[in-house]
Amino acid sequence: MILITIIGSGNVAQHLIKAVSKSIDLELVQVFARTKESILHLVPTDKIISETSQFKDADLYLIAVSDDAISNVSHLLPFNNKLVAHTSGSVAIDELSNSNRKAVFYPLQTLSKNKEVNFKEIPLCLEAQNESDLKLIKQVASSISDKVFEVNSEQRKSLHVAAVFVSNFVNHLYKIGNDICIEHNVPFDILKPLIQETAKKIELLSPNEAQTGPAKRKDSQTINKHLEILTDKNQKEIYKILTKSIIDNDKKL
Amino acid sequence: MILITIIGSGNVAQHLIKAVSKSIDLELVQVFARTKESILHLVPTDKIISETSQFKDADLYLIAVSDDAISNVSHLLPFNNKLVAHTSGSVAIDELSNSNRKAVFYPLQTLSKNKEVNFKEIPLCLEAQNESDLKLIKQVASSISDKVFEVNSEQRKSLHVAAVFVSNFVNHLYKIGNDICIEHNVPFDILKPLIQETAKKIELLSPNEAQTGPAKRKDSQTINKHLEILTDKNQKEIYKILTKSIIDNDKKL
Repeated sequence: MILITIIGSGNVAQHLIKAVSKSIDLELVQVFARTKESILHLVPTDKIISETSQFKDADLYLIAVSDDAISNVSHLLPFNNKLVAHTSGSVAIDELSNSNRKAVFYPLQTLSKNKEVNFKEIPLCLEAQNESDLKLIKQVASSISDKVFEVNSEQRKSLHVAAVFVSNFVNHLYKIGNDICIEHNVPFDILKPLIQETAKKIELLSPNEAQTGPAKRKDSQTINKHLEILTDKNQKEIYKILTKSIIDNDKKL
Repeated sequence: MILITIIGSGNVAQHLIKAVSKSIDLELVQVFARTKESILHLVPTDKIISETSQFKDADLYLIAVSDDAISNVSHLLPFNNKLVAHTSGSVAIDELSNSNRKAVFYPLQTLSKNKEVNFKEIPLCLEAQNESDLKLIKQVASSISDKVFEVNSEQRKSLHVAAVFVSNFVNHLYKIGNDICIEHNVPFDILKPLIQETAKKIELLSPNEAQTGPAKRKDSQTINKHLEILTDKNQKEIYKILTKSIIDNDKKL
């Protein structure tokens, strides 16, 4: 049994708490949280602590707090030479305090409070500073996910940027599609099969093979019609820059 | 049995040929194609025609050619007062020739040659100029899809623009994600569960509820780090404009 303590109570912390609690190979020792409310439904009260003096022994301390708090939190830990991992895509392993052994345990997924996820399907990107620590976090990772990758800090940072494009920005394009539907009084639901199919295609085809649409066809007549329909300046600008990017990309192929 | 003739041999035409051939309520009478090669595996040779003089009687003629050819093709048809529908999202019903009864039969989906789709899941957006024609194309649509919508020309045009955002542009963001992975030597496959989950979330949450990421959190430290990692000018520009759009949107909420 590997003993895990989680530091944090936000989105990522909550999903990790659930995953660790479910695993038969892991034991959730404690959760350190400044505010108890958001995790009371997930953790017995006696396991929730809010003072650093209350920390018990654990094999792995997982810091799941906002990126800019990671370094500070790691420096507040009262123990030494324990294994401490942060869970961020964009923070270097070095930003953790030197007092403890450092690692990274980054779940590459979009985690929202109101949407359950199957943790088994979430890629976990791991990094550690020595072989035995790497082995331990690999064991932990494998017990909650089927997709475990060893990824160094540089690779992880670039993955995080790529993730912003394929997830955060993609969701914002869904939002613009929704806005256009509302403005013209058509149900956004008509677009949902298209959204699903666009994502499914990428499992089988490369993004270049999967590209369709007026920009791909260099169909300037349709592109101009679309720009006429768009009344929002911001939507117009995004339409133009992405259309140009698709056309320029085809020139390079 | 409703008799269907399809005009065209491209992507959309091929998917329609398959769907019509499968349906027990429909009979594929002929396919009009300038080049036979791309559809020889789908249609018996004696049903493929390339001269307008060869057209037989049908209940519905479906024009599945490129947007800018629709009007010309509809004017070349040698018959009168038949029901003729085009299959485009961005062309008005009026652009069809006045010689025949006009309709629109628009499958709102991203159709690629090398990717099979379940036609039952594809929303079909229908428009006709009288009730009896609408009834007929509804019958045809219902026999190949479970998602049939009546949509007028204005609504259809705005749906088509929205579709470009949630599908064509989304796929281009996948492409940029892939480029970043190649540049930094990490497998794009790590991002695929994230891509699927981002699409799945939109079935349950509104785009505003589903939004996550550094722009949503107004995490300027991470945003600046990302802009440093991006070496490509075009990628940087797209990152900036979409980040700004997410931040500006939150101000309005």
